[in-house]
Amino acid sequence: MSIEQDIPTQTDLDRLPLDIERIHELSEALLPVSSQIEEGQEIEDIELNTKLVELISILHELHPADVANVLESLPPKERTLVWHLAAPEEDGEVLLEVSDAVRETLIESMDTEELLAAVDDLDADELAELAGDLPHQVVYEALQTRDAEERAQVQAAMSYEDDQVGAIMDFELVSIRADVACEVVLRYLRRFESLPDHTDKIFVVDHDDVLQGVLPIRKLLVADPEELVENVMATDVVRFRPEDNVEEAAQAFERYDLVTAPVVDADKKLIGRITIDEMVDVIREETEADMLNMAGLQEEEDLFAPILDSVKNRWMWLAINLCTAFIASRVIGAFEGSIEKIVALAALMPIVAGIGGNSGNQTITMIVRAMAMGQLSGTQAGRLLKKEVGVALVNGLIWGTVMGVVSWLLYDNFGIGLVMIAAMTLNLLLAATVGVLIPVAMDKAGRDPALGSSVLITAVTDSGGFLIFLGLATIFLM
Amino acid sequence: MSIEQDIPTQTDLDRLPLDIERIHELSEALLPVSSQIEEGQEIEDIELNTKLVELISILHELHPADVANVLESLPPKERTLVWHLAAPEEDGEVLLEVSDAVRETLIESMDTEELLAAVDDLDADELAELAGDLPHQVVYEALQTRDAEERAQVQAAMSYEDDQVGAIMDFELVSIRADVACEVVLRYLRRFESLPDHTDKIFVVDHDDVLQGVLPIRKLLVADPEELVENVMATDVVRFRPEDNVEEAAQAFERYDLVTAPVVDADKKLIGRITIDEMVDVIREETEADMLNMAGLQEEEDLFAPILDSVKNRWMWLAINLCTAFIASRVIGAFEGSIEKIVALAALMPIVAGIGGNSGNQTITMIVRAMAMGQLSGTQAGRLLKKEVGVALVNGLIWGTVMGVVSWLLYDNFGIGLVMIAAMTLNLLLAATVGVLIPVAMDKAGRDPALGSSVLITAVTDSGGFLIFLGLATIFLM
Repeated sequence: MSIEQDIPTQTDLDRLPLDIERIHELSEALLPVSSQIEEGQEIEDIELNTKLVELISILHELHPADVANVLESLPPKERTLVWHLAAPEEDGEVLLEVSDAVRETLIESMDTEELLAAVDDLDADELAELAGDLPHQVVYEALQTRDAEERAQVQAAMSYEDDQVGAIMDFELVSIRADVACEVVLRYLRRFESLPDHTDKIFVVDHDDVLQGVLPIRKLLVADPEELVENVMATDVVRFRPEDNVEEAAQAFERYDLVTAPVVDADKKLIGRITIDEMVDVIREETEADMLNMAGLQEEEDLFAPILDSVKNRWMWLAINLCTAFIASRVIGAFEGSIEKIVALAALMPIVAGIGGNSGNQTITMIVRAMAMGQLSGTQAGRLLKKEVGVALVNGLIWGTVMGVVSWLLYDNFGIGLVMIAAMTLNLLLAATVGVLIPVAMDKAGRDPALGSSVLITAVTDSGGFLIFLGLATIFLM
Repeated sequence: MSIEQDIPTQTDLDRLPLDIERIHELSEALLPVSSQIEEGQEIEDIELNTKLVELISILHELHPADVANVLESLPPKERTLVWHLAAPEEDGEVLLEVSDAVRETLIESMDTEELLAAVDDLDADELAELAGDLPHQVVYEALQTRDAEERAQVQAAMSYEDDQVGAIMDFELVSIRADVACEVVLRYLRRFESLPDHTDKIFVVDHDDVLQGVLPIRKLLVADPEELVENVMATDVVRFRPEDNVEEAAQAFERYDLVTAPVVDADKKLIGRITIDEMVDVIREETEADMLNMAGLQEEEDLFAPILDSVKNRWMWLAINLCTAFIASRVIGAFEGSIEKIVALAALMPIVAGIGGNSGNQTITMIVRAMAMGQLSGTQAGRLLKKEVGVALVNGLIWGTVMGVVSWLLYDNFGIGLVMIAAMTLNLLLAATVGVLIPVAMDKAGRDPALGSSVLITAVTDSGGFLIFLGLATIFLM
């Protein structure tokens, strides 16, 4: 960067609130001169120059995670400008923090040299995480600068799926033997320049690297210096295999309040560790993915994705929705004769379908959540079904009666009121049944129960609702 | 508990998979003799007795968080049985871990003495967390057994709202002065019986308890023993006030990869700390609450809540849904004349409404997520609206044309095809606009943008879709 400026240092303890509004204002104001800024030219307009200096100083004070958050919140042009102005030494960290969609746009805006500089400081596991999004040439050159051990680590990490522990484990850890005194451990630690992030425990291994236990730092600090590690260490260790699912690992971290945990191979040899910061990201992504999936969004979308990218991300569920809506439409089509005779049916049928969809969504959301928490075993499904059917029956009788009376008064037709009560109750029962069965079936089939569940349940309660209501009306009112 | 049994100890390093299926089977099998078990009588049936011993041994090996998870997954009777058989010394921890709804049912099943025993081991902040759900008498007696300092801590914690940092901060922490050598700190720590959970840093305070900085254990362990704390400590500390919102605190933990952080009062005095394990719970609950709220569930529901409790938890959004469905129905009612003339309109109108609802849900879900991440400032809303309208326009023209052609062929009426294209495009534009505006307006009004957003958007796209489609048809086809 060619612009000289003073970066204010954080002198007191007050934490810096991330003023995203101000960054949005500044980057918008600077947009007209963005090409000059990116080419390193002097900005002559004094006011704009002041704004530029302010923006740079704000950005340089930000934590990489905050920079990532800011970048995600900006439209493409402002994003490129801010990315150009952010501290280049943090580029690698920022790339790790941003969402996949935004990461692609940032990497596209960088040349090979910038990319190599950005990934230079990254650990092996971090480089592996980015590798899939980087041009092959960059990955190849970045690997050349590493030693054989690190190259092997990167390749090992890249060999696992994104949802496996192996893909997010890191290789920076401290291990010791069981037969040394705590004092020796403390002396050994002092020889490190610095300890890996989140070091809350030291891993105890034998001469074959087989994990024997862990020595929590909390215990090491209060232990008698003469005491042997084997007498202080914990042996009931929550540990993982690289093939383990990250969501299950995250749930274990959550339940057992872990900060780090060892990863071992099939021979119980220590090969890496996973840390709570990665697990927090997994938990956030997992619950968010459920939410996005239920609404029929395929993946986390760049807020300011080009319109066609957004269309692509959403088209599938819209297409499925159209197909199911078409089926519902054909159901109604089959009863056109009845509707011609009593046109009120056309006005009332969406009420029956709508309450079924709403109630079904409540049921399915609850079940999807219980499944995500691992609380649903096969024997439970039947009981839950019974309970949900009970709830549906109560709701159906209450709300069905309300709407039945309203319809009776509105159309002065007692029969319509009765059909309304029956149809609403039956559609709520259908919603409850399908709301339990869809996620259970998806789960049995090895699919994510959240995926499009909202679209599916609505499809069933729409077609079902129309069929039940118009069918009953045709039988009893014609 | 009167039953003698051997509790198998965990001898090797393998972690215990939580076999929830087996616990469900055993508790169901033991249900017929549950009253004998609860009264401490001998079970004569040998097979059942074997099962009882197995269930007890499984339960006693479980971590309190796993016991909580098991309890949440069980219907009422089995839940009471398992709760009775679980290790009583962990009762307090389990009560802290279970969801609010299940906690109430567990507390109801315990008498004063059991409750007092359960909360006896809890820290001040934990007792405060439970206090709201405990009978007043129990809270009063539990406080009598504590010293004045702890009583003050419990009362302080209880004075904050559930969503404030003060309600979840804990008081167990280690603090030191800045002007001592690291060696002195290590000696000081060794005098502790044990260090508080998650101790990754020691807080540095002056003689008035004003926070000066933090000494990360990672740094302490590698520091020169002669070095003074003030030369090793970090002074740019992320710290919180007890009034701060817990969700914002959780986001800070997530961004800055924190394990613990200090809480200070208005005079910058250190009064407590918050830890990552609480924050992980906050993150999980926050994203889950968004999911439940969008579907119109008021709160996390006990899976096996009595039917009437479930009805109560869900009635409000169902009632709102009924009102909006009634409005949509009246919109259709206004066009009964048109439907009588062209009955095909009745069959086609749900397609227009349906695709609007689906697309609107996609938009609103994305916006709610961006808001939860703090990425949406006022200036952005206008741009997002422009982008979403663009996406809607493309989708409307594509899918509108598809359905327009289908309708044209199906009903052999070119006019209906054109009305279909126009109505679908307009309803998608309406969905995009309202999908952006609802959460922005909710947020401006200080309400949770996730709350019932799915029900609201569907209401607009239903009534709007019927109005647009039937309106256009009446104008152009009659």
